[in-house]
Formats: sequence, C-alpha cells, structure tokens
Amino acid sequence: MKCSIVRIPTRSPSDVSALGEAIRDGSIEPRDVVAVLGKTEGNGCVNDFTRGYAVQTLQRFFEGRIGDAASRISYVMSGGTEGVLSPHLTVISRTPNAKKPSGGTKSLAIGVRRTRDFRPEEIGRMAQVGAVAEAVRAAVAEAGIEDAADVHFVQIKCPLLTTDAIREASARGEAVVTEDTYKSMGYSRGASALGTALALGEIDGAALVEADICQAWEKYSEVASTSAGSELICCEVIVFGNSANAEGPFFIDHGVMKDAVDGDALRRLLDAHPEAELAQVLAKAEADPSGFVRDRRHTMLNDSDINHTRHARAVVGGVLAYVSGDPMIYVSGGAEHQGPAGGGPVAAVFRRKQP
Amino acid sequence: MKCSIVRIPTRSPSDVSALGEAIRDGSIEPRDVVAVLGKTEGNGCVNDFTRGYAVQTLQRFFEGRIGDAASRISYVMSGGTEGVLSPHLTVISRTPNAKKPSGGTKSLAIGVRRTRDFRPEEIGRMAQVGAVAEAVRAAVAEAGIEDAADVHFVQIKCPLLTTDAIREASARGEAVVTEDTYKSMGYSRGASALGTALALGEIDGAALVEADICQAWEKYSEVASTSAGSELICCEVIVFGNSANAEGPFFIDHGVMKDAVDGDALRRLLDAHPEAELAQVLAKAEADPSGFVRDRRHTMLNDSDINHTRHARAVVGGVLAYVSGDPMIYVSGGAEHQGPAGGGPVAAVFRRKQP
Amino acid sequence: MKCSIVRIPTRSPSDVSALGEAIRDGSIEPRDVVAVLGKTEGNGCVNDFTRGYAVQTLQRFFEGRIGDAASRISYVMSGGTEGVLSPHLTVISRTPNAKKPSGGTKSLAIGVRRTRDFRPEEIGRMAQVGAVAEAVRAAVAEAGIEDAADVHFVQIKCPLLTTDAIREASARGEAVVTEDTYKSMGYSRGASALGTALALGEIDGAALVEADICQAWEKYSEVASTSAGSELICCEVIVFGNSANAEGPFFIDHGVMKDAVDGDALRRLLDAHPEAELAQVLAKAEADPSGFVRDRRHTMLNDSDINHTRHARAVVGGVLAYVSGDPMIYVSGGAEHQGPAGGGPVAAVFRRKQP
Amino acid sequence: MKCSIVRIPTRSPSDVSALGEAIRDGSIEPRDVVAVLGKTEGNGCVNDFTRGYAVQTLQRFFEGRIGDAASRISYVMSGGTEGVLSPHLTVISRTPNAKKPSGGTKSLAIGVRRTRDFRPEEIGRMAQVGAVAEAVRAAVAEAGIEDAADVHFVQIKCPLLTTDAIREASARGEAVVTEDTYKSMGYSRGASALGTALALGEIDGAALVEADICQAWEKYSEVASTSAGSELICCEVIVFGNSANAEGPFFIDHGVMKDAVDGDALRRLLDAHPEAELAQVLAKAEADPSGFVRDRRHTMLNDSDINHTRHARAVVGGVLAYVSGDPMIYVSGGAEHQGPAGGGPVAAVFRRKQP
Repeated sequence: MKCSIVRIPTRSPSDVSALGEAIRDGSIEPRDVVAVLGKTEGNGCVNDFTRGYAVQTLQRFFEGRIGDAASRISYVMSGGTEGVLSPHLTVISRTPNAKKPSGGTKSLAIGVRRTRDFRPEEIGRMAQVGAVAEAVRAAVAEAGIEDAADVHFVQIKCPLLTTDAIREASARGEAVVTEDTYKSMGYSRGASALGTALALGEIDGAALVEADICQAWEKYSEVASTSAGSELICCEVIVFGNSANAEGPFFIDHGVMKDAVDGDALRRLLDAHPEAELAQVLAKAEADPSGFVRDRRHTMLNDSDINHTRHARAVVGGVLAYVSGDPMIYVSGGAEHQGPAGGGPVAAVFRRKQP
Repeated sequence: MKCSIVRIPTRSPSDVSALGEAIRDGSIEPRDVVAVLGKTEGNGCVNDFTRGYAVQTLQRFFEGRIGDAASRISYVMSGGTEGVLSPHLTVISRTPNAKKPSGGTKSLAIGVRRTRDFRPEEIGRMAQVGAVAEAVRAAVAEAGIEDAADVHFVQIKCPLLTTDAIREASARGEAVVTEDTYKSMGYSRGASALGTALALGEIDGAALVEADICQAWEKYSEVASTSAGSELICCEVIVFGNSANAEGPFFIDHGVMKDAVDGDALRRLLDAHPEAELAQVLAKAEADPSGFVRDRRHTMLNDSDINHTRHARAVVGGVLAYVSGDPMIYVSGGAEHQGPAGGGPVAAVFRRKQP
Repeated sequence: MKCSIVRIPTRSPSDVSALGEAIRDGSIEPRDVVAVLGKTEGNGCVNDFTRGYAVQTLQRFFEGRIGDAASRISYVMSGGTEGVLSPHLTVISRTPNAKKPSGGTKSLAIGVRRTRDFRPEEIGRMAQVGAVAEAVRAAVAEAGIEDAADVHFVQIKCPLLTTDAIREASARGEAVVTEDTYKSMGYSRGASALGTALALGEIDGAALVEADICQAWEKYSEVASTSAGSELICCEVIVFGNSANAEGPFFIDHGVMKDAVDGDALRRLLDAHPEAELAQVLAKAEADPSGFVRDRRHTMLNDSDINHTRHARAVVGGVLAYVSGDPMIYVSGGAEHQGPAGGGPVAAVFRRKQP
Repeated sequence: MKCSIVRIPTRSPSDVSALGEAIRDGSIEPRDVVAVLGKTEGNGCVNDFTRGYAVQTLQRFFEGRIGDAASRISYVMSGGTEGVLSPHLTVISRTPNAKKPSGGTKSLAIGVRRTRDFRPEEIGRMAQVGAVAEAVRAAVAEAGIEDAADVHFVQIKCPLLTTDAIREASARGEAVVTEDTYKSMGYSRGASALGTALALGEIDGAALVEADICQAWEKYSEVASTSAGSELICCEVIVFGNSANAEGPFFIDHGVMKDAVDGDALRRLLDAHPEAELAQVLAKAEADPSGFVRDRRHTMLNDSDINHTRHARAVVGGVLAYVSGDPMIYVSGGAEHQGPAGGGPVAAVFRRKQP
C-alpha cells in the first residue's frame, strides 16, 4: 500500500476547478482516491448546508470521471472556517498494488470504513459507540497497521438529530438522547470518540456506561476527530497511521493540545521531524467546558450570538496557522472525548524530503 | 512622573468586585488613576452596549471613592472578547509628584487628552484627523516624552455614527461619510489612526487628503490603536511611551504584526527583554482586506453571520495568548491605518524585575 | 387603589430623557411608580447586558428623585426588539390612597411581589415553582383581586444559570437542571409559569411533578408571561387584573394566541372593547416546538445562527404591531407553559374614553 | 398559453421528494416547467450557499427527467426563511399549445428572460439597469401581455459582488460600485428594480441617473421583486401578469405594502377576489431606512448580530402568514426601489373556483 495526500483550495463549496487541475496535471489519479476530507465555509452547526453541497458536488465530479467507482470514496466535510482558516479539500489516495516495502521504515497507511445507518434514538448512545469501535478496528486492519500506537488520527463523520428525525422517532414511541438539535451534535461526536478510544484500547470497555457520554470527560481518545453533519445517518471512519506494510514518502505523527492555545503541541511535532516537510495539520478545537482557559474566564459558553464551536475553531485555527505558517489546515470543532477537556488532538502529516 | 498598570479581571460589564479588592489591598490608589482601558464582552460592533454599561459602572464606582475627581479619569472600553480573550480592565495610574529620576533609564510615561465633541458630519473626515493629531501631540508633551520614537502605543476611543446621529445631520442638510452605521466605525477608527500618524511624523501631512481615509492603506501608524463606540462623541487619547523624566519599574515596547497570525512580532518583543516580566499586551486585529492571509483565501469578509472584526479578534487573541501564555490581554478589532493592511500594532508593557 | 400605565420610548438602554420629560409634565409621579416593564434592544438571551444596564440606569434615576423609596420599584426588563419591536418602558403606577369606588365597575389593579433568592440548583425545579406560586398568591391579594378569573397577566422576571453559577453549585456538590446556559432560561421561565398556573388554579398541584417542567406542555397558564435574565437571582412578580376595589380609567383583558401568527386573538380583544382605547399590548412568543406552524415546516429550531426566541419575537411582534397599529408593544420570548405549545398569552390594557 | 403554479414543500435545499411526488401524480409535467421560484433556509446574505445548492439539485433533478431541455428552466432561489416562513418551491408551468381563449377573461401569463452576463464593475450601475429593462420588455412581450398595467409581479434574480470578483475587477483596473460584499446585494437589487420600473413606464428614463441607484428612493417599481445571489452573474427575469391571450383558472393581482406591518395591503387583495382561492403570495420586505416604523424607532439597522434583511423577512413573513393563513409563502428581503421606502410590493396568485 502507498498512501498520499494532496491539499486543494476551494473558492466555494461547489468549486472543483483546482481539483480538476490537479487531476489534469497528474497530482491526483481519480481511481486511487479513497477519501476526501474537507473544510467548508458554513457555520459548522445544525443548519450548515455547505457540507452536503460540497459532497453532492464531489460525488457528481467523480462520477463524471470514474463512474460507479465514485461511490466507494468517503467524503468527510467539516463546516466552519472561522478566522483565518481557509476552505479546502484534503484528497487522500491509496495505491493497493504497490511493491512490498523492503525495510522497516513505516509510511502513511489509511483505512476507510462505514458503519450501518443509525436510527435517531441510537445516536449519541452505546449503539453508536459499539458500531464505531467495530468500524475503527476494521479500518485499522484494512490499513495494515499492526500496533494501536501507530494510529495517529481517526477522522469520523457522524450524524446529528434534526427536528424531522426527532419527530419520526417520537412517532414510533422512541425517545432520543436530546431534543436540542445543536446539542445532538455533541452527543454524536462524543459517542464516536468513545468508540474510537474503545477500539484502540485507550479506555476500558467494561467500565464504559452510556451515562459517560458527554459527562465523563476523563475518558477520551488522543487521536479521535469526530465531526457531525446532517448529510448522513451512518458514521464514516478514516484511520490514519503508519505501517511497515506501506511505502512512500508520507508519514504521520500526533500530539495533544492541552488547551486551545497550546501551540507548543504542534511545535514539538515539527521539531521532532526536521528532516521532513509538513503536508497537512489535522486538529480538533473546543471551548473549555470549565469556562476558563489558563485560569482566565472566557465568554464562549455564554455567547448566544456565536456558538462556542465557532469561537474555538477561530482560536485553534489561528494558533496552528501561526505555528505551521499556513491557514489552509484542517481544524474541526467540538472535541467531546477527543483529547482532554478544553484541549484536543493535533496530528501532522509529513513528507520526507528526497534524499 | 511614575506610571503603573494593573490588570483586573471582571465577571461582567458591571463587575467591580476585583477592582474594589485591588483598592483595598493597596495595589491601586483611586486618586492616581488616569485611565481605565477595558475589554468588555459585547459584540464590539454598533449595538454593543457593554462598553457604555462598563463606563457607567466605573464612573459611579470612582465617584463613590473620589467624588468629582472621578470625572478626570479616561475610560476606554473595547468590546469583543471572542475566542479565549478574557474580559478585564487595565487600570493606569500616574503619580505626578514622584522624585526626579537620577539616571538615563527611561520608564513608562502616560499622557491623556480628549478632543472636542464632533458633529456627525465630521466623523471619519479630516476634521477628526486634525483634532486627533492635536490631542496626541498634547498628550505626548504632557507625558514628558521627548522623542516620537519613544511613543509605543496610542490608544484612542472614538465615536461612530448611529441612525439617530445620521438623521440629525441630515435634518441640518449635512451629509455624513457613510450611512452604514457599522461601516462608520471603520471611518472613525481610520481617521483617528491617521491623526496619530500625523502627530508622530509617520506620514506626510501635506500629502494627506480626505480620500485617503480607509483607502490609502499604505499610510498608517505603527502605534495607533483606535476603537469606536456609541458612548462618546469626542475622541479620548491615551499615549503610552517611555521617558527619562519618568521613573518606576514599568516600560513599554512595540512591534508590528504583518498579518493576523504573525505571533513572532510579540515573540521578538519578549526575547528582547528577557530581564523583565510581561505586564500586559496591547494589540489590534483586522481581517486582511485582500481576502487572503499567507496567500490562502479567508472567508471573514464574506460572512454575513459574524462580522469580520469578531473573527479577527478571535484569531489575534488566540495567537497572542499562545505566545504570552495569557488570554487576559487587550486585543481590539478594526485596524484601519493601524499597521499594514491585514496586520496591526502590538505593544508589550514590561515590569523590570527587582534586582 | 388607582393604577395607571404610561409608555415611554427609549433611545438606548441608558436613555431616560423621555422618562424625565414625563415626570416634568406630570404624566408620572415618581413616588407612585411600583414597577417598570421594559423592552431593551439586546439579544434577549444569556449574554444580554442591556437588561442590567437599563435596570442600573433606572435605579440611579429614581434614587436621584425619591431616594431610598426607589428600592421598592420592581424592574422587569425583557431583552430583544427583533423586527419592528420598539425599545420602550411601561411605567406602572399605583395610588394607594384613592377614594373607595362607588359602583361595581372593575378597574386595573396591580400587585407586586418578590420571591426569596434561589440557589443555582433550585432554578427550573419545584423549589422555584412553589416559591413563585406563593408570590403570585400574595400579589393577587395585595392587588385586591377577588377572583382568579380577574387576573389577566402575570409578568415574572426570573433568573438563569450562568457558567459561574453552575461552577459554584458544582463546587458544593450540587447538580443543576441543565449545564447549557441558554437552555436554563427555558427551565426558569417554565417553572415560573407553572407556579403561576398553580396559584391561579389553572392546573392541579397534586398532579404536578418536577419532570413536567419543560416537558408536559399541556399544563400551562393562560396569563403567565415569564422572562429570564442574568441580573437577578430571585423572581419578581407583577400581577395585572381588574378589581372592584380599584378605580380609574384603565382595565385589562386577555386572550390566547394559538400559534405565532394568530393575530385574531388580539383582534377579538380590540373588538370586544370598542368603547376604549388601547394603552398597551403584552404578549409572549415562541417557536412552535413541533417544528411546524399551520402544518408548514419552520426552521427556527434548526437555526444555529439566530436563536429561536429571536425569530419568534420578530414574528409575533410583527403580527401584533399590524393588528394594533403600533410597534411599541411588549412582546417577550420563550413561552414555556405560557399558553399552548407554539402559542402564548396576549393581554391588552385599555383606557376608557371620557364620557 | 396556459400558465399554472404549484407549491412544493422542501425539507432541505436538496430535498426533491415532494417534487418527484407531484410529477408522479401528474400535478406537474416536467416539460412544461419554465421557472422554479424557491425559498431556501440560508441567511439570504452573501455567504448563503443554500441557493446554489438548491439550484444544483434542481438542475440535476430535471436533467434526469427531460435531459437538455432542463437548461431552459429558470431557477430563482431566495434565501432566508426567518420566523414562520416555510422553505418551498413555486413551480411555474406554461403550456404553449393551448387553445386560443374565446372571451375577454384574462388569465395568468408568464414570460421568462435572461440578461447577458455582467462584469463585476457593471453590477449596481446603469449597465445593469439597461440590460434588465430590455429583458423585462422582452419577457412581457413573450407572455403576450398587452398592457403594462397587467404586469403584477416581476421577479428578478441578480448577481452580487464577491471578494473574488472585486479582486478580479481591480486587477483589470476597474472599480466596483462598493467593496462591501453585503452592500453590493442592495445595489444589484436596486439596479434591477429600476430597470423594471423603466421597462414598465413607472419612472422617467430620461431623468434617471446612476447616482439615483440606492439613493433616490422615490423612484420605484410597484411590481419589481429582486433578489441577489452569488450563484449567477447575469439577471434572470420572470414576468407575471394577466393576458387575454392566456387561458386557465389562474390570475394574479398586486398591492403595495406601505410599511412592514401593512397587512391590509394583502387583505384588500383577498377581499377583492372573494370568488377565487389564494394559490400563492409573493412579497418583498425591508427594514425602513428611516430607522422608524409608524413613528416608532426600530433597531434593525443598528443590529450587528443579525442583518436587517433577516429581521424584515421575519416581520413581513409573519404579517402575511397571519393574513393569508399560510406560512408557505414567498417573502424576499431587500426592497430597494421595490415599493416605497420601508414598504414593498405584494402580489397574490389566485385560482378561480370551478363553476
């Protein structure tokens, strides 16, 4: 297996001009694409239709080039490019028929899976945790990653509850985890993150109960990055890691931001790999649920004009753009059970320089 | 003259509990206070009443302690604590009867002035530029600062146009610079900054024309920080610099952020003064008018849900909180003619450690 | 008792110029004022400081005129003047020493009470319901209203949970009803409304349980109007009704809007009293929790940019301004247990024309 | 010619399920569709991608049914369903080969035209006015409408300026009408409305100058309804009127709302046609530029959290939903030169009841 990533700027959720260019110049071979991870310029909350718009556009684009094979590509759009964050796509390709790697150097390996569709009443609950754990394990195996420590980022796109879905469940006599649509995003992200932690052995499955979801913040994954949207009703899982079975110049590493202004987490990653150039940063952001950052009161959770996820993305996006020197990075909001409370995972994909 | 600054956290625009505490424990002597610079948790735009609320609260607070002398204090509230920025007050005190400094060490010196009240049609125009320039020169002289290069931050609170004010001018047959109340904030900030640049010799007064305001971005001040609000109709000017005529442990220095993620501008300041501890950071933020940061498209100027000044404060606040390790800093939005387009001034007040 | 109401326009939360005018021209006698009901131009949500700003301004204003007696006035500010709603104050006066009414004509009678302060963990729970019921009963008695059917509007200002309050409770080991500050406003309004319904015999106290709050929408008061704000930690109750013990030209009547566009509820009230002129409209607004109005899907509950209470106020304010011909009316958001789900109470104060 | 309209509810910008249903049950014949007028649930401002998303979805939908003929359908999406407004499509069909009408009864007649593409510097200027006037005249002729008085609604979808477009023009040395993207929507709507007024003889072309656009509010069209969006760079024109050359049960009439709460304008239309049932309401909304409605101050123009077009749609949508009893109506924001300042046109499509 040989995996690569290419970043493509977009001028709107329906812009595929630079993507077409990259295909024409050979940087991307459509048949090798396994996933597209995007940042779109909506509000990243319940009524963000830029995610669905981008997915519809990309599906059509790839169908025009590779026909039915397009349905195998996983699209994970994260809304919200607050502050300096720049809308773009991260196109992830995988060549299955690469030559067997000779030595022990581990390279970027990617696995992609999808859970079954969920009923509204399953969202944000143990049913979702379990299904995600299973999908993560399958994706790790598919990627040929042999050690959980070699998994550095697990991106999951998960569903949310809409008013329609809540009504449909209610009509069947089923209660959902919350009737607040915005809040359902947090439950879905939290359940997905706990599923990841379970699959990677970061938490004890036997001790995990439903009440822990969005409550027991000390249970978290260092590498989960989950993002909720109304455009799907299953979870899509993309596992990023390193494997001796993979080859190529790319590899990945991760750190943990202890709070929203912990730029040192990324700086340490950059310092650890001076021989390589940075290809992409992947991170999660959240408003510290304590109401404080570095012992100073913040106002994100009391703001009824701007949702706290939007504030948090602007901050983390700014900090990581400063450290990396590039605002075209992937920062997604709502880090429930993804890193410690108020902080979040940060991963960096590197490309080894040619010797 | 001996000047000092003390930072006071607030729990709301009307919270003076920590301020009262600081007075009780002797950190602040009310009679010495010349200005209070605050960050309040409103939207920082036209309908931000947290600024006026805080000013009303502070006026009443000081009246209760020092009576009529309270009216000499200058209150400059800047709305908007997006992201990690933490609401607080910077209380600026000055003891006029200090002993004459013996040596050549320059210390923090502060001058405060107020322009006359403006008519609506003067706001954002040369009349404002001229009046501000005059007030800045007077404040520099009052501070005993002998060289324009020793001026490191000029904070100006300036008026904006409300619908009422526009109607009043119109009834008199006078046209205002813009009928868009939000946009009037930019014109007022821009005119104030150009007035500062004029007073400090940063731009050529003879070549300055009214059409330059919010147009000729290459004309700017490296040290102006201007903030518009509906709670006043004159400009209040606070000049921060160093003077051999001043004494005490505080001094100030400044840099220029070339864009919103230029954290190195502050880092260089910190590195330049390793012997001192940081007492406060003062900075301006704006969304790059080009629509790009580091050649990446940003979406701040096309966002009809969140004003671009709010995005920009969140970013710069995050970057500078990372570098300084403290989110309780002063970052104000809208940097028209304050530093280069897309960037802005950043100043740091230091306190020399006791030998 | 003789009660009267006067409406006063405001140009900002701190504007008392028209109020001063009304006192100078004798329309209002400060010593007779028992309550001021205001609409202020904030967002009406958690971080709306226009309410506290207006209260601080009014307290100072009345202290300057009637000294310590000012502390007996009840201030109930409701934030949010979306759409055409116009910021204003409704000043409510009561002359206790009026002559005993001769006949059976009932006139406007007003009673005012305050509950004890609540601890954070009591907000939105039965403790609040009970305390409000008690205060409503006391205010009805104080007003000399002898029949619950003569109570036409009960305005209650109630507290909400801030991040600070939640932390304080948590530090004491107490759990609050919700950790979502915006959502806490709904619980507090709901508990206050159920307390009113209990006091007036609209619901069965024995059958009421804590889980009914913000759940059992079929339990409601036809006359409760409750509004949450961060500027108080008790509930302030103002009962409006008619009493044969009261005299004067004012009287009140009420109807129930079955949904947000049920302007006929007000039209019927106007038609029922052709002999009188309308002095003020008092109403509540909410986004139908079903997600539908007149079988058409609405998007208010899925909107992450604008809170649904803001949408609802704009709609109801527009409809009632059309029917009454006046946008300077009192429409407050969040009608949990106030009228049927999606609808709300509407009251009209009339003034009999001189014969 | 025989024209008809059918309203179709949507559950999201990409929902065509009810549209498919209507085609299956024969209510709509895809080959007869000439235009689709939609309300989508975005913010209706610059970064509203729900319009483009709906258009992309509809294009694909019709291509799948009628192939290349789909490109002849005109799609006019208006963003913003604030308050009770319900997202939906108005599908407009025309059968060209209908039998020649026997008598003088006029029926609904529709004409559709498109202008050439505009360069950024032409938007909001006389070039746009002229091109729109020409397209309106052509559409009136196409509809077989013989008298300008028989034109009752002219819907125009027009472009706006994005940051990209402004840069592109600037690179060519061309200045655009405004560099504020949100404000450009107003200029584009205003120019389109004046073009309509010109075509219908409502204003004097000889006396019209470029400076009149968004300035001379006394020049307006009673029937223009213009809506700006980033998804096109030409103007799409749909003329609605009555013609003796047309047949069928539908006809249209219009009135003018003198302000945002003038529900009587619609009530009079309903009263004028008691024999027919209401099929659709089409109206425009705006925040009164004077800052007052019925002599009461409104706060829409000073609100930096919610754009005034959103407030205005919520109000007018509520008022007209009350009068018509139906929230699934077409109310679009920004009524520059469309009806008097603060007011706007309102049209009603009726269906004659079968005898």
